[in-house]
Amino acid sequence: MTRVVVTVMPRQGVLDPQGQAVRGALGRLGFSGIHDVRLGRRIELELDGPDPLGTAREMCERLLANALIEDFTVAIED
Amino acid sequence: MTRVVVTVMPRQGVLDPQGQAVRGALGRLGFSGIHDVRLGRRIELELDGPDPLGTAREMCERLLANALIEDFTVAIED
Repeated sequence: MTRVVVTVMPRQGVLDPQGQAVRGALGRLGFSGIHDVRLGRRIELELDGPDPLGTAREMCERLLANALIEDFTVAIED
Repeated sequence: MTRVVVTVMPRQGVLDPQGQAVRGALGRLGFSGIHDVRLGRRIELELDGPDPLGTAREMCERLLANALIEDFTVAIED
């Protein structure tokens, strides 16, 4: 069994309304010095099989990420 | 300016309905050998100030994470 960590983030240059909403909320709480906030997903998968990284990539392409507006990375975690 | 990466995940032992929904959807797409799926958030912050890690921790406690059901980590990324 392999633990694969998938990270899905908004593409550079794509508007990130969730990140902007968080940035605004942090400002209203009194936090300052915030240059940017980007909000994405972290998905931890525990997979069987011979090629967990390839499987995770296919899962991203088919379900976990929206390639139009998001980038993803996959990595094996010890 | 420092880039801080915040990871927020459901606590061990807490039900993760989003992760279970993703697991079900992957199964319906034909993926097998999935032992577990856990779904959380990755938040990338670009912060000014003398203590970006401490600031990020305070942001988690006040807004970014729900301590009842979620754990968070903060790390500086190069």
